[in-house]
Amino acid sequence: MPKEINITLSTGQSIPVSKGESVLHALRSHEVYLAASCGGKGTCGKCRVRLLDGPAEITPTGRNTGQTGDDKMVLACQCFPTGDVTVDVPESSRLAVGQRIAVEYTTELGHYGASISPLLKRVGLKMQPPSLDDSISDLERIRRALLAKGVEPIQFGPGFAALMGKALRQASWDVNLAYDHKGRAVLLEPRAKENAYGIAVDIGTTTVVLYLVNLLSGKVLDVGSTYNSQVRFGDDVITRIVHATEGGGLSALREAVVTDINDMLGVLLDRHSIPPELVESATISGNTTMSQLFWGLDPGPIREEPYIPAVNAYPLWRAVEAGLGIHPDAPVFTMPSVASYVGGDIVSGVLASRMHRSAEVSLFMDIGTNGEIALGNEEWLVTAACSAGPCFEGSGIRHGMRATDGAIEEVKINPSTLEPELGVIGGGRPRGICGTGMIDAISEMFLTGIIDQRGKFAGDADTWRLADGPDGREFVLYRDDDRQVSLAEVDLENLIRAKAAMYAGVSLLAREVGIGLEDISKVYIAGGFGNYLDVQRTVVLGMLPDMPVEKFEFLGNTSAAGAYLALMSAEMRDEVQKVASMMTYIELSVSNSFMDEYMSAMFLPHTDIARFP
Amino acid sequence: MPKEINITLSTGQSIPVSKGESVLHALRSHEVYLAASCGGKGTCGKCRVRLLDGPAEITPTGRNTGQTGDDKMVLACQCFPTGDVTVDVPESSRLAVGQRIAVEYTTELGHYGASISPLLKRVGLKMQPPSLDDSISDLERIRRALLAKGVEPIQFGPGFAALMGKALRQASWDVNLAYDHKGRAVLLEPRAKENAYGIAVDIGTTTVVLYLVNLLSGKVLDVGSTYNSQVRFGDDVITRIVHATEGGGLSALREAVVTDINDMLGVLLDRHSIPPELVESATISGNTTMSQLFWGLDPGPIREEPYIPAVNAYPLWRAVEAGLGIHPDAPVFTMPSVASYVGGDIVSGVLASRMHRSAEVSLFMDIGTNGEIALGNEEWLVTAACSAGPCFEGSGIRHGMRATDGAIEEVKINPSTLEPELGVIGGGRPRGICGTGMIDAISEMFLTGIIDQRGKFAGDADTWRLADGPDGREFVLYRDDDRQVSLAEVDLENLIRAKAAMYAGVSLLAREVGIGLEDISKVYIAGGFGNYLDVQRTVVLGMLPDMPVEKFEFLGNTSAAGAYLALMSAEMRDEVQKVASMMTYIELSVSNSFMDEYMSAMFLPHTDIARFP
Repeated sequence: MPKEINITLSTGQSIPVSKGESVLHALRSHEVYLAASCGGKGTCGKCRVRLLDGPAEITPTGRNTGQTGDDKMVLACQCFPTGDVTVDVPESSRLAVGQRIAVEYTTELGHYGASISPLLKRVGLKMQPPSLDDSISDLERIRRALLAKGVEPIQFGPGFAALMGKALRQASWDVNLAYDHKGRAVLLEPRAKENAYGIAVDIGTTTVVLYLVNLLSGKVLDVGSTYNSQVRFGDDVITRIVHATEGGGLSALREAVVTDINDMLGVLLDRHSIPPELVESATISGNTTMSQLFWGLDPGPIREEPYIPAVNAYPLWRAVEAGLGIHPDAPVFTMPSVASYVGGDIVSGVLASRMHRSAEVSLFMDIGTNGEIALGNEEWLVTAACSAGPCFEGSGIRHGMRATDGAIEEVKINPSTLEPELGVIGGGRPRGICGTGMIDAISEMFLTGIIDQRGKFAGDADTWRLADGPDGREFVLYRDDDRQVSLAEVDLENLIRAKAAMYAGVSLLAREVGIGLEDISKVYIAGGFGNYLDVQRTVVLGMLPDMPVEKFEFLGNTSAAGAYLALMSAEMRDEVQKVASMMTYIELSVSNSFMDEYMSAMFLPHTDIARFP
Repeated sequence: MPKEINITLSTGQSIPVSKGESVLHALRSHEVYLAASCGGKGTCGKCRVRLLDGPAEITPTGRNTGQTGDDKMVLACQCFPTGDVTVDVPESSRLAVGQRIAVEYTTELGHYGASISPLLKRVGLKMQPPSLDDSISDLERIRRALLAKGVEPIQFGPGFAALMGKALRQASWDVNLAYDHKGRAVLLEPRAKENAYGIAVDIGTTTVVLYLVNLLSGKVLDVGSTYNSQVRFGDDVITRIVHATEGGGLSALREAVVTDINDMLGVLLDRHSIPPELVESATISGNTTMSQLFWGLDPGPIREEPYIPAVNAYPLWRAVEAGLGIHPDAPVFTMPSVASYVGGDIVSGVLASRMHRSAEVSLFMDIGTNGEIALGNEEWLVTAACSAGPCFEGSGIRHGMRATDGAIEEVKINPSTLEPELGVIGGGRPRGICGTGMIDAISEMFLTGIIDQRGKFAGDADTWRLADGPDGREFVLYRDDDRQVSLAEVDLENLIRAKAAMYAGVSLLAREVGIGLEDISKVYIAGGFGNYLDVQRTVVLGMLPDMPVEKFEFLGNTSAAGAYLALMSAEMRDEVQKVASMMTYIELSVSNSFMDEYMSAMFLPHTDIARFP
């Protein structure tokens, strides 16, 4: 018998670990979940822990040398204790499951006049048990009972047939049969007990969000959120498309995101003690590339003229075909796309905003990785993509992060001392800066003269906070003994590029349909910003058009909201198809005017100051 | 670089082998296929080779000690050359792929008035390539073309969608779309080239037979045959059902037979240079238990009163769901079963015999592992199972084998010298005895007084051939320096038990419907016997009822023949469903008369000698 060894966490919790087992693995089997999008291969660098004490074998990887100057930092997946160890798990390494999501957009189906009608229908069947005089097969017995009920013809797969015999006998031949809207049988359960769960998944280029939903009540039981681990193949959709067209790239991308979803799902199901096979349906909302990668469809033609998606209106496919860790025959509804660069996430967003039901013209802006916009009303909808980049979601910004615990979300800079006052999500020490914090910071830095109109540091700002960092000049927002959050000039460039793309897109789309900004009655903002986005500041930044504050409304993650609506209601699934077919895509990149608008918007707030009274 | 080492076969062929690689593996990668139903685990004992020369590491297993007294015999899967070796591969160890099948029942569709109409239909679609002005998705382009052709609504799965983009572009948007009779799209191919292949599979309890078919012409390109490697879990269906209900047993049984099929298929496809994904449909014919095991359906209730199958009328399922190594979306048609002990193989047999189209009463007997019979005409059909046992297929008989090369198929014994004269399939030295040989031998042994009416050796036979063997007294049919083929008393008991069950079944079934044997106008015999079954001898044995020779007709493997018919023609698929629903199952085992009939038939030819004039 080998001697028993333990990992003691700085919280006091003690976790047994076997010789040769990694810290990551040991922690996971005791429900301490670390971010590890590479699956523990030592490549993503997310599962960092501090090895405070005790002996361990550390596999050397480039990621193990602490950039932070903290030589106790090791990757949990590459750390194999050889005796008792003490380990500190920083908040930043924990998997963000069930953490506060910036906006928990819980949609009331009632707002939409929609009823609860999930993807599976149910019919109760009470059968006579078989006897020597009535010895037809189990499947024929079910078919006979369905015929007696007058139910539409049902199709049965081998997965269903494999479980059917036991289920019928355990339920004493009194069951509910659940089947999808194509008439495929999915599950049999005793009539006595009723449980039904589903998942609504938003696959963002940067972030994946999952709602675990009780399908009978519509209640969102839990929410998970994690970085899309496809980021290790590239930050933006174009890089990922290129990777997908290389040998094995497509399946690596597909597996990365499916693993992200399954990992999060596993944690949520554990927490609520729900067996995976009771999760009986799913909806997927993502941009065109994310949806295609999820289903393993070659995205190559998306980036080559004439920019053709494989599928816009997705058939209802099954969980097993995607590799989702729920009931294998669970139907998976994919939000329809409009074009190669306006996908199901934007159709979801329009659905969630309800702008397609209004007589007045509204503008919808999704400030995510790509930056898509839609403009219109109940009669017409136009839409375009701006390629804003993922910086507002924390990617491409050195200390960028999503709007979760530890993120700086508010910045106020004292004009005389140049000292910042910070608002941090969840309180406590900041560990990074999220989209609203960046917008705040850049506006304040501009207003206090730390940066100029082009976003460059003004040479004369007199503060220790203006320092030289690894990426050149930077402004230090926060510093303590072992941590620093700052914005460098390259970060500012990325942010200004992103805001310019958004602004240019809105201007051009309005011009294309011949309306002025004053004709827009409402501006819906979607994205991981939270309610804390300060419209005034964002207008100062020149990202949003200069309009009265009351016209703006923040909707949070509308991609997940749309997925939730489609999960819960047949009317919503019909409506989302209608919305997608109403939307006309306008390709901005072929327009010369776009480059002009874009270049003009590369200043704070804009070269044409008349647009920002 | 390790030194290169080689296996030289006694045929002169030289095959390279790596250190640590087994002889089985090395031979297989050079297309020398050995029987190895255990997959090379050293348990089935089938891959025996003679190690004539050279050094090798031999993993010791019980199977490596040569029962034959040949100490050079080793299992190829457990033999790892450490230097150049010379190896002789006996015919008996080669995989029986494409070897002569006793009866090659090539069915002419014309006999049935049926047209060629495989499981997939095809429609030609010529599309405009996409452009910036017409940038709908690939899938919508296909849907639009189908609409223009007026084709029924087609369903598209993710597997199809994943390959669609490349296929459309490679074919310059001029394709054939193949879809199944449920309207599911399966494949896209350039209109210019047409290839379509299918497989018809007979899953016997003892033997698996596979026809590789050109679906455009109906030609059987090749035939493969192998033992069902489920035999390692038991010889008969009951033992396998028991095994299936134990932990993991069901999936082990499923995998065993699917691997048998895929192995054989791999060899046939190699030989004809056909890529697996061009095999676009399959039919499966087997008894109720074999069909359920193939699809992974719990067969437990089959052996418990009231004996309920999971499915009789199978839906059209897909190859991927079974694990068949062909196009994953290929439809798989399963021959319908009638009851727990009369399965798709018997329905196939009735279809192949065409007795259901005749006004006169015919008898169908499948002398396979189970022994099923059917009686009837165009108006009625009754059927029953006799549990004859697998001995006529070579199982349970020490030197038993299927009717392939090396099998003794004819025996004539000189009444004065008691010396046998043997007919061997393929000529050459015998290596076992097949069903017809056993029937011949037992009749001759009875007629020459070597055995008595009870099948026991008469003490006074004066010949060296009556000897003591490992299973007690035996009659040696053949012996040379390293080989012997004999029949022991226990073998004879098994054979007599099997013939008694068949005869009792026929008598009772006729009595149940109130007809005499003289009312039967035709007797169709199915099974792996070949055309060489001598009716007179079989009547002497008392297995077949005493009727004029001209009433008997041998149909060979009617299970495979039915599978072939269903593979080729929609009319045949409809007809087989009709046949199945016409057939009334009669449970013989609950009848007291059966045991009486059975006991009476345990003599040669019968206790009631009046029945055998």
